[in-house]
Amino acid sequence: MDVDVSEDRLREDVEANAAFGETEPGRGRTNLTGSDANHAARDRLVERLENAGLSVRVDAVGNIAGRWTPESADPDAAPVAAGSHLDSVPNGGIFDGPLGTYGALEAVRAIQESDREPARPVEVVSFTEEEGARFASGLLGSSVAAGERSVESALELEGDGRTLADALSTIGYRGEGALDASAWDSWVELHVEQGTRLEDADAAVGVVTDITGITHCEVGVEGVADHAGATPMADRTDALTAASEFVLAVEDAAREAAAENGTAVSTVGSLDVSPNATNVVPGRVEMGVDVRDVDYDVMNALVEEARDTLTTIAADREVETTLSRPFDVPPAPMADRVRDAAHDAADRGGYDALDLHSGAAHDSMHVARVTDAGMLFAPSEGGFSHSPREWTDWDDCAAAVSVLAGTIADLAGGSER
Amino acid sequence: MDVDVSEDRLREDVEANAAFGETEPGRGRTNLTGSDANHAARDRLVERLENAGLSVRVDAVGNIAGRWTPESADPDAAPVAAGSHLDSVPNGGIFDGPLGTYGALEAVRAIQESDREPARPVEVVSFTEEEGARFASGLLGSSVAAGERSVESALELEGDGRTLADALSTIGYRGEGALDASAWDSWVELHVEQGTRLEDADAAVGVVTDITGITHCEVGVEGVADHAGATPMADRTDALTAASEFVLAVEDAAREAAAENGTAVSTVGSLDVSPNATNVVPGRVEMGVDVRDVDYDVMNALVEEARDTLTTIAADREVETTLSRPFDVPPAPMADRVRDAAHDAADRGGYDALDLHSGAAHDSMHVARVTDAGMLFAPSEGGFSHSPREWTDWDDCAAAVSVLAGTIADLAGGSER
Repeated sequence: MDVDVSEDRLREDVEANAAFGETEPGRGRTNLTGSDANHAARDRLVERLENAGLSVRVDAVGNIAGRWTPESADPDAAPVAAGSHLDSVPNGGIFDGPLGTYGALEAVRAIQESDREPARPVEVVSFTEEEGARFASGLLGSSVAAGERSVESALELEGDGRTLADALSTIGYRGEGALDASAWDSWVELHVEQGTRLEDADAAVGVVTDITGITHCEVGVEGVADHAGATPMADRTDALTAASEFVLAVEDAAREAAAENGTAVSTVGSLDVSPNATNVVPGRVEMGVDVRDVDYDVMNALVEEARDTLTTIAADREVETTLSRPFDVPPAPMADRVRDAAHDAADRGGYDALDLHSGAAHDSMHVARVTDAGMLFAPSEGGFSHSPREWTDWDDCAAAVSVLAGTIADLAGGSER
Repeated sequence: MDVDVSEDRLREDVEANAAFGETEPGRGRTNLTGSDANHAARDRLVERLENAGLSVRVDAVGNIAGRWTPESADPDAAPVAAGSHLDSVPNGGIFDGPLGTYGALEAVRAIQESDREPARPVEVVSFTEEEGARFASGLLGSSVAAGERSVESALELEGDGRTLADALSTIGYRGEGALDASAWDSWVELHVEQGTRLEDADAAVGVVTDITGITHCEVGVEGVADHAGATPMADRTDALTAASEFVLAVEDAAREAAAENGTAVSTVGSLDVSPNATNVVPGRVEMGVDVRDVDYDVMNALVEEARDTLTTIAADREVETTLSRPFDVPPAPMADRVRDAAHDAADRGGYDALDLHSGAAHDSMHVARVTDAGMLFAPSEGGFSHSPREWTDWDDCAAAVSVLAGTIADLAGGSER
């Protein structure tokens, strides 16, 4: 490979970052936006960016961008941007976010040490509050950078009794303006897969084809709460048996759709029964349904099928049903030119690359709305995620960062020295 | 009828009792064992019993018994006992319990005023903590009186941070010894139906044939919690879809059994999902199942069928399942001689009496283990129960108490003056 990344340097960065908010040595961490741990993690990133000669900017929602403008580059050319996030879910893993952030920095350092003479600047980006673990709105920094959410509305979000504005001011990371992802030539995010497709295929790196859209539906089933002893079977309007039919119908429909396209998923993830006592026939059930696919038409069809199922159940069982769709994000296809650059980079390095979709949401969904975006996945051992069991071997990390570096180098253009 | 009850006197008693812990004027009340409201309700009952010439005793668990020994009776003869309870569920109705307690007192007063010369004493009984709303163990006073639970273990029960012993001492209702239901010649309890069978049949009174047994099962389904986006349909071990199959199978089995015998019921009344988030495939489900029938063999068959269903689901879906049966009470058939006396009394008064079973548990279940027991039901408008919507018209109350009085008079034997 013409761009050689350093596994040791990468590991040092990711391990140092893992110490902030550590919950299990070298395995688990809690890094919530605006916390002391987050403050320390941000300070270290800024220091490492500056050590590598990058010029750092913090925007109004705390997004951090370090720009490297090589001597060979036109300083006014649209930059190639790469990165991910530093925040975590409570007791999350050490790679989810930091691998893509420090991987992008390591890629820059490797390109700096190579014979490459990039024609474009390269930006290393860390987005604020990707997980939504504190301010309950995930992909936050990228939504602002993509112009989908205003700085003002983001700063007003509250978590743990304070606004994002306060939380960022307290740690000194409420900067000015907003990163503008639409001004980037292209974007690449490396992330851990959070699944086992790479492991199963023994592939070194995943090249993401699409990020699935996500719809959340809130479903209510209203029956009649009754005495479990005094109410004969024939006289019941049991909300839970009605809801159980719905749960199984949602699973059936998604299995059928997945059998056709391999990507559709639907999940009844939450279900709450009232009054929820062993000796009372359930009177009400509320469910949260998650529907995802790379094809928005399939997502919409699954939601319509869920509605039809509810209509049938309501008629059969005399319950009343409701379905709302409070959250809906269409799928985000990745740009061909970024995918091609990733495959070329993998080929040059001799790494097996696997095309796959992402069922999880990522900042790249927002960035993809305004510029050419791509994602790389590193293998996740056993597919564990959002847990200290999350793991990727260091040589697998280095291989994925190597492909990231080659991709960035290609996108940044220019020639070799 | 040779024994004439007073609707006005009965209504005055039930309405006065309804004021203790009133939640809705004349409709709803909260009367938890050991509370101020319970204290006041007990004091008034004792006063009314004494006013009617009954000699009152309070046992160690707060059961109240007022004995009337007519001049015509052998004071050493086993008494006929009748009554119910005064405690309620939170925001319960005004008749559930008090109608049977004050109905028994009104029956005694009516017999006293009649030409009857009973050969046996009559006891009016109010059992402690029938609902189990505070000390989490229903039918408590009757379980002690029937010798199924020791006084000591009852007094140690805790609710709202104190023991039953403390709670009863505080209100002055921790007496001595224990009522001995086995010493009673017979027992009759009048209660509201908590269903609509009497209303549907336009019958004045129900004569209970059997009280169903009750089994509670705790069922666990263990799957694998996973990312709702990153986990393909084929790779899931979803505890909730598995549990939904179980819920529907329990319903199916009970419907089949009920189609054969008209009495079997099964209910999955509680269901808790972990982690219960819309975007996470459910990893664990815990359910509470209530199984009842007048035939213990049918109950056992339903539990075995539930076990078999779990085995099948575990094999099909690779989940792990558990079923325990922490609570199990066999059915209690009512005594023929009490049922016959009730029918005779209804016939004499010109009231339509309907034979029916009780799907709800009552103190009479315990009493029936040690002496000849029977139950009468008064119609419940719309079947509402454990709610201020519970209602029985006053003339319907009086009719049922009239049948109760006739039943007690017959059981107490003797002749007319």
